Amino acid sequence: MKTDLDAFLEAHHLDALLVFGPAQHNPAMAYLTGGAHLTSALLVKPRGQQPTLFYNPMERDEAAKTGLETCDLSAFPWARYLREARGDESRAQAMRLKAALETAGFTRGRLGITGRVDFGPWHSIFEALQTLLPQVELDGRAAHQALLATRRTKTDDEIARIRRMGQRTTEVVGRVADFLSSQHGKDGLLVKADGQPVTIGEVKGLINRWLAELGAENPEGTIFAQGRDAGVPHSTGNNAAPLRLGSPIVFDIFPCEAGGGYFYDFTRTWCLGYAPDDAQALYEDVLSVYRQIMSALQPNMLCRDLQRRTCERFEAQGHPTSCHKAGLREGYVHSLGHGLGLDVHEAPWFSGSENNTDRLEAGVVITIEPGLYYPERGLGCRLEDTVWARPDGGFEVLAEFPHDLVLPVKG
Amino acid sequence: MKTDLDAFLEAHHLDALLVFGPAQHNPAMAYLTGGAHLTSALLVKPRGQQPTLFYNPMERDEAAKTGLETCDLSAFPWARYLREARGDESRAQAMRLKAALETAGFTRGRLGITGRVDFGPWHSIFEALQTLLPQVELDGRAAHQALLATRRTKTDDEIARIRRMGQRTTEVVGRVADFLSSQHGKDGLLVKADGQPVTIGEVKGLINRWLAELGAENPEGTIFAQGRDAGVPHSTGNNAAPLRLGSPIVFDIFPCEAGGGYFYDFTRTWCLGYAPDDAQALYEDVLSVYRQIMSALQPNMLCRDLQRRTCERFEAQGHPTSCHKAGLREGYVHSLGHGLGLDVHEAPWFSGSENNTDRLEAGVVITIEPGLYYPERGLGCRLEDTVWARPDGGFEVLAEFPHDLVLPVKG
Repeated sequence: MKTDLDAFLEAHHLDALLVFGPAQHNPAMAYLTGGAHLTSALLVKPRGQQPTLFYNPMERDEAAKTGLETCDLSAFPWARYLREARGDESRAQAMRLKAALETAGFTRGRLGITGRVDFGPWHSIFEALQTLLPQVELDGRAAHQALLATRRTKTDDEIARIRRMGQRTTEVVGRVADFLSSQHGKDGLLVKADGQPVTIGEVKGLINRWLAELGAENPEGTIFAQGRDAGVPHSTGNNAAPLRLGSPIVFDIFPCEAGGGYFYDFTRTWCLGYAPDDAQALYEDVLSVYRQIMSALQPNMLCRDLQRRTCERFEAQGHPTSCHKAGLREGYVHSLGHGLGLDVHEAPWFSGSENNTDRLEAGVVITIEPGLYYPERGLGCRLEDTVWARPDGGFEVLAEFPHDLVLPVKG
Repeated sequence: MKTDLDAFLEAHHLDALLVFGPAQHNPAMAYLTGGAHLTSALLVKPRGQQPTLFYNPMERDEAAKTGLETCDLSAFPWARYLREARGDESRAQAMRLKAALETAGFTRGRLGITGRVDFGPWHSIFEALQTLLPQVELDGRAAHQALLATRRTKTDDEIARIRRMGQRTTEVVGRVADFLSSQHGKDGLLVKADGQPVTIGEVKGLINRWLAELGAENPEGTIFAQGRDAGVPHSTGNNAAPLRLGSPIVFDIFPCEAGGGYFYDFTRTWCLGYAPDDAQALYEDVLSVYRQIMSALQPNMLCRDLQRRTCERFEAQGHPTSCHKAGLREGYVHSLGHGLGLDVHEAPWFSGSENNTDRLEAGVVITIEPGLYYPERGLGCRLEDTVWARPDGGFEVLAEFPHDLVLPVKG
């Protein structure tokens, strides 16, 4: 959590952090500013000191809302730097950065640099900055890692925000279930009162409308994939396709707070009307592993051990797994889950590799999402919940919702 | 447009382009892939050759939808590179990049690099790549500039997509106007049938819901700012504030296609019920400049000349302008407009500086948005439309909507 930032800067041998770009849909800046509406800003945080936020004067009110120490960028007039740099924009930006860094109290040592931006122009700006500050060592990866490490454990306020996103998410999932269950099965398809088939695109439209109504954004889309598509974990589904009875649907929804804040991540697998034997058997395998893993969670466990345990369970059921083969297309092909926060995917990670030393520390929020995929058989199944490692040692699903496979429909 | 890419790579002395990151909310990748649902990919485009898209195997269906030459990243197994790099992830990624570049036919020369990503890790990856390919010259800025130059002029298909976003945008603006006009004025506030005041947050909630219903996303939020806030161009408005009669509201809306596609950008200034004399006078000044500029548009005009002309007009009305003072907080404080496409702000630019050689070429899409701001007087006014420079020499507003200042409300 944010109080750990200085310790992680030290662990990554950084004397200061420079974060840049907008405050929205830019987790590093959103984290450090609280998500004000800034289209472009700079934040300098020397280790052991308070950060300074440099803002564009048109955004002075938004900058003030952050409660941070602020500094108006018009004190560093662009035209002057551009003139001094003889029209070289990268160099002019670098001169401005140098002045901002000095104002915030950083002049020497190792500087961590990150932000979600268009890489190209910033790469050239930092090349120019390096020539202006040859004694400063720039490190992008360390900055990113120090922030991910800081963000890994959540405060009560962050948990409340993720929980609220979970409530919105499950509210929408419930509305989708009710909508589908109120339609009719006919000739193998789900049809509306007027006899027209319900399409995947139609369901996705409802999902987006309901998410927006509840104050959420859906920047990365929704997976609502049926049959063969459900067997390819990241296939988002074919909007034109009509919904078929019996064929499993993987419904993976991962919205965030409006403006690019905290995410929630949730998956259910549904069969409309009835479940064929093969879909039912696959679902039972996944549900059984989901339950075994949920009951195996222990504070401070190594995430890689959970991944390995998941592979063992699926292998005991006779499924191939990614623990023993890379590039797998059938069976258990991904990892058990991931951390979640301002990114839908963040630390801790669940790779089974020996190098992965991430643990289930108190305060982390993770997804648990075992799944099995057999695209050539038209089958896929995944069950996913978002889980908080509570400071009291318990593990709590932040938004409960039934795991049922079959959604009844009207006759 | 895309057919210009090789010419702009040559103009920027690039032998190839390497674009990375997701395909959504990443204009460079969205442009070159057509916006498939890829969470992370690489695209290599040697000058004069077709691009190759390197994808994650879980996203093979989405990659195939692009119609590009594709290559499965599992052909470059991560575990092997990580072992060879002795656990150094940046170096392992760089080794993988090097292999992908070779596969796509690039081994020497100048390589343009860009993508909207977390800067930190990629900065370290390219440091490592530079040591692996010492003879290759990396250039971020040139890559970005070549792509912006390519994207500056739009194809008919792109115009159709922006026009469709314009229709959705003005549909939502119309619904907001109808909603506000159907409420009642009472004691200086806008109130609902139950006597409760209408708040800015409530209006923004409706905007997001209606945009989602029409298939649009609103990743950067909406400006709906009244009174003093309307006088600060990028203040987004205070959600808790009740809407007041008579005080000008700046309503600036800039949604994009779902998944991070083409934007539209649109602003109106409204007074609820009536316009006080000072707001009316400010509006008339802005509307008159808007009309003068719209009728002055000519093919191939320099954008800086339009900005200067705008300043002259406002100065003739007695307003201070940014042409003569940087860091201005009152009067005409920003530039006339900007290009628009996969970014809400892109080339061409309207800076009045001598260095700005951007022109109104056939095929550009720009905003025209003169505005005046007097925050201490509680006044702000901006009028904005998105305009296409047609190949036949005409200039067309892509979605018409009345410019009226006063929105009548119920007595």
